[in-house]
Amino acid sequence: MSRPQPIPAAALPPRAFRGAVRIRFGDCDPAGIVFFPAFFAMANGIVEDWFTEDLGIDFHALHGTRRIGTGFVHAEADFFRPGLMGDRIALTPILTRIGGGSYALTVHIHRGEEELARLSLVTATTDLDARRAVPIPADLRAALVAYQERCAHG
Amino acid sequence: MSRPQPIPAAALPPRAFRGAVRIRFGDCDPAGIVFFPAFFAMANGIVEDWFTEDLGIDFHALHGTRRIGTGFVHAEADFFRPGLMGDRIALTPILTRIGGGSYALTVHIHRGEEELARLSLVTATTDLDARRAVPIPADLRAALVAYQERCAHG
Amino acid sequence: MSRPQPIPAAALPPRAFRGAVRIRFGDCDPAGIVFFPAFFAMANGIVEDWFTEDLGIDFHALHGTRRIGTGFVHAEADFFRPGLMGDRIALTPILTRIGGGSYALTVHIHRGEEELARLSLVTATTDLDARRAVPIPADLRAALVAYQERCAHG
Amino acid sequence: MSRPQPIPAAALPPRAFRGAVRIRFGDCDPAGIVFFPAFFAMANGIVEDWFTEDLGIDFHALHGTRRIGTGFVHAEADFFRPGLMGDRIALTPILTRIGGGSYALTVHIHRGEEELARLSLVTATTDLDARRAVPIPADLRAALVAYQERCAHG
Repeated sequence: MSRPQPIPAAALPPRAFRGAVRIRFGDCDPAGIVFFPAFFAMANGIVEDWFTEDLGIDFHALHGTRRIGTGFVHAEADFFRPGLMGDRIALTPILTRIGGGSYALTVHIHRGEEELARLSLVTATTDLDARRAVPIPADLRAALVAYQERCAHG
Repeated sequence: MSRPQPIPAAALPPRAFRGAVRIRFGDCDPAGIVFFPAFFAMANGIVEDWFTEDLGIDFHALHGTRRIGTGFVHAEADFFRPGLMGDRIALTPILTRIGGGSYALTVHIHRGEEELARLSLVTATTDLDARRAVPIPADLRAALVAYQERCAHG
Repeated sequence: MSRPQPIPAAALPPRAFRGAVRIRFGDCDPAGIVFFPAFFAMANGIVEDWFTEDLGIDFHALHGTRRIGTGFVHAEADFFRPGLMGDRIALTPILTRIGGGSYALTVHIHRGEEELARLSLVTATTDLDARRAVPIPADLRAALVAYQERCAHG
Repeated sequence: MSRPQPIPAAALPPRAFRGAVRIRFGDCDPAGIVFFPAFFAMANGIVEDWFTEDLGIDFHALHGTRRIGTGFVHAEADFFRPGLMGDRIALTPILTRIGGGSYALTVHIHRGEEELARLSLVTATTDLDARRAVPIPADLRAALVAYQERCAHG
């Protein structure tokens, strides 16, 4: 298995959404660095902002009112450099695939130009009450496609 | 405000429920000790076991099926000694008050005979769907009263 | 014990520091509201920002380089209203006591004018390597005193 | 990308270590299921027990005293079925590769015979003070090799 190589933040699509996070004391472990599950939680949080502030899809209404889940069927991360408490980091979601009932994204985590970690997440849309797979809702699909195009045409 | 003093585990009611927890790497912070909100989360977890294994009230069915919440209106903790990763600790819930729609408990956290922390929690029973206060359900009340008596007559 | 009553955000000192937090999906529990230990973790995070951005004391250097801990010996919270995912909340730290080797603060958590929770935290400054109590460092003391005066003379 | 298929618990090596975890209310999200970063945190916790109780390597002394880190350079998970609060689950670590300064393991998460999730983790051993890669210590290597052989010869 060849590991991916970090890329500078400047190499990301300039019109991609970027979420800012500050690494907290409580995110870090006795080794003094980010406890790795916290990177996944941060990415989930930034996806919430990306939906609501950038895609125009209210993440919380989607789950709470419309009862559509966007849970992950796969999540992975490569960790390049440790994150330290107090670091200001940027999380950039990039869509890599939009299917019928699922989509995939990469979330790049940078401290300045240095990529600390890269996450790949595969989402499946579900009916939260019936607990079964459903197609991506039309408004979400349109927003995802528009975002993908915006990123492609920097 | 005078601070409470730690008491040895041997001073607790011998027939009280004791939950065992091992302090994890991920529970600890860059100071190498338990990040204090983790003590509250551990106590909540032990209350789940106490309900289900000792009181005979299925905590998860209570919330998930019966839709009765046992959320806290007040939570406090005195921290006497730091908890370290790898420590095996015991959490002992002691009921201090049973009211009409609320009850209060103290959770003692010991490492051996040494009390690391003491939490005081005040619960209000709620209808999770209507989001309003409700009396303690009869089966839960009976179980709480029996536990309180069992502890009193060690 | 009489419970404190919520106060509107407008009643807080106008020149107090306010930290903004958005409640995340991952902060919430199956009852759909903030899992209470998360409020303590959020408060700890806001104290980091308050130190660094407002008091002029680098919280992370204080712990990491200077090896001074500001851990809590007491923490308590009153929960007035549940926090919901997506809520934008403001956390306002107010100093209530500055002693020789400890200080106490209240953190008010508001959603708009509505107070959701109020935390009271008592800190003891420690030498993290020797694991013993030390006086509040002079620069931190001066910053705390100045903040307290700023809040008093709104 | 083809997704892996779940396997029954009975298909795992019978002499592998199994760690028991109960899914807590606080591990779950507003969709009522395990918030996915919690699965990574649980796996990290079980690795601690596996080291200390089964491999005979004190995980906490390794990090705290010997200052050897076993952090992850890669972590991934496939989620097959949601975990629900109250579920009793078993986590089984299986070594897949032992290199010079890194090793890889799979952690299977089962509820009864049903595999809920499968994690793949790649560790690199580091000197925590110098923050640089180091070879796997001899005692840890011997313990990992012995475990791998024990699993292979069920």
